[in-house]
Amino acid sequence: MKNHTGIKALVFDVFGTIVDWRSGIAREAEPFLNRYAPGRDTFDFADAWRREYSPSMEEVRSGRRPYVRLDVLHRENLVRVLTRYGIVGVPDSEIDELNLAWHHLDPWPDSVEALCRLKREFIIAPLSNGNIRLMVDMAKRAGLPWDAILGADVVQAYKPSPQVYSETVNILGLAPAELCLVAAHNGDLAAARRLGLTTAFIARPTEHGPHQTTDLKAEEAWDFVADDLNELAEQLGCPG
Amino acid sequence: MKNHTGIKALVFDVFGTIVDWRSGIAREAEPFLNRYAPGRDTFDFADAWRREYSPSMEEVRSGRRPYVRLDVLHRENLVRVLTRYGIVGVPDSEIDELNLAWHHLDPWPDSVEALCRLKREFIIAPLSNGNIRLMVDMAKRAGLPWDAILGADVVQAYKPSPQVYSETVNILGLAPAELCLVAAHNGDLAAARRLGLTTAFIARPTEHGPHQTTDLKAEEAWDFVADDLNELAEQLGCPG
Repeated sequence: MKNHTGIKALVFDVFGTIVDWRSGIAREAEPFLNRYAPGRDTFDFADAWRREYSPSMEEVRSGRRPYVRLDVLHRENLVRVLTRYGIVGVPDSEIDELNLAWHHLDPWPDSVEALCRLKREFIIAPLSNGNIRLMVDMAKRAGLPWDAILGADVVQAYKPSPQVYSETVNILGLAPAELCLVAAHNGDLAAARRLGLTTAFIARPTEHGPHQTTDLKAEEAWDFVADDLNELAEQLGCPG
Repeated sequence: MKNHTGIKALVFDVFGTIVDWRSGIAREAEPFLNRYAPGRDTFDFADAWRREYSPSMEEVRSGRRPYVRLDVLHRENLVRVLTRYGIVGVPDSEIDELNLAWHHLDPWPDSVEALCRLKREFIIAPLSNGNIRLMVDMAKRAGLPWDAILGADVVQAYKPSPQVYSETVNILGLAPAELCLVAAHNGDLAAARRLGLTTAFIARPTEHGPHQTTDLKAEEAWDFVADDLNELAEQLGCPG
């Protein structure tokens, strides 16, 4: 394990690592589905919406489409899912409002306490594909004590494109190893490691619900591996 | 006066409006000057360094130079001032360290309390020409409770270039009038008003020392005018 004293800043994946997007989207969509598609499972709806996430970003990552922020992609993806569900005639304002569900996600139970501990020792910031306004709304509602909002919207590119990690290193004026990515996703960590960042894996085995099959454990020897963010704070020597 | 309920976010000029750069630079430069130029006035040194600020950004604003962050300009400006002072042979590491003086400025006495009040009602962020790392270091040291770090480094342009204001409006997903710039500088507010932002002037009559002649008062009918940030919080209906 790397000596933690070399790390100056921690950046975090957010959807899945800091917040429970699946329960949050299911909860936020429930009144909408009750009105437009009674009886449809709210978690299935959350999964269907989320399945559009990576393909929509891939259009930007591949260069086929210029950068647009995640709020825009989320809304396009929502319209696509509604069509598939046979839900038609929804006023634009209601679609806009449902699209804000991603701004209103709850943190995992350990997130706020652990971030407060880590903030005393390190610069902490999201390194999310979520846009700045989404991250700000989420943080103010949930009490996430970020020092700055970094990520896709600042560098105009989506993870795991390499420039997201390398430009964030530059913005913070650090050597790559002084920046640690904390994520519940092995793929995100692998991309960060290729750029020389320090890596920390947090297990979130119910991010995708009770039958999750991916990212149940660390798939490489990441610099830190922990069951939750408080355990990571312990490993990094941050008192509770 | 505009009804405050239309405002969703407040962005702040920082050097001069939130922090007292002149006293801070004088204090931080004192040990350096004692060693390399004993007897030189620390406030004169702060003023000399600051006089290079706007011309150095003008190279970027005019398009003659691609965007580089303020830490880079500050360092170049420092080297120029040291040459003019006849200070030679300083190790690079000492110049780097002195350059961090801008990361260690103290807030005006009302800043932290008022920002905490305003944060409960509005999104609050710096809209400074200072780069993200500079703003983060300053905020962590001084306890400035920003929701995000916005400004030059996010949009890769320097105030008062119009895109700094307009792109910040876009990033926050607001109508221009929903965003209020708070600044102690009439020129900054004039540029923001041209883009449709709401404007608030705060008097900082000693920013440039006891003989200040500029920005002593509001030079246009700004939407809000206050003697300090707590008075602005009162005007915006934020309880103490």
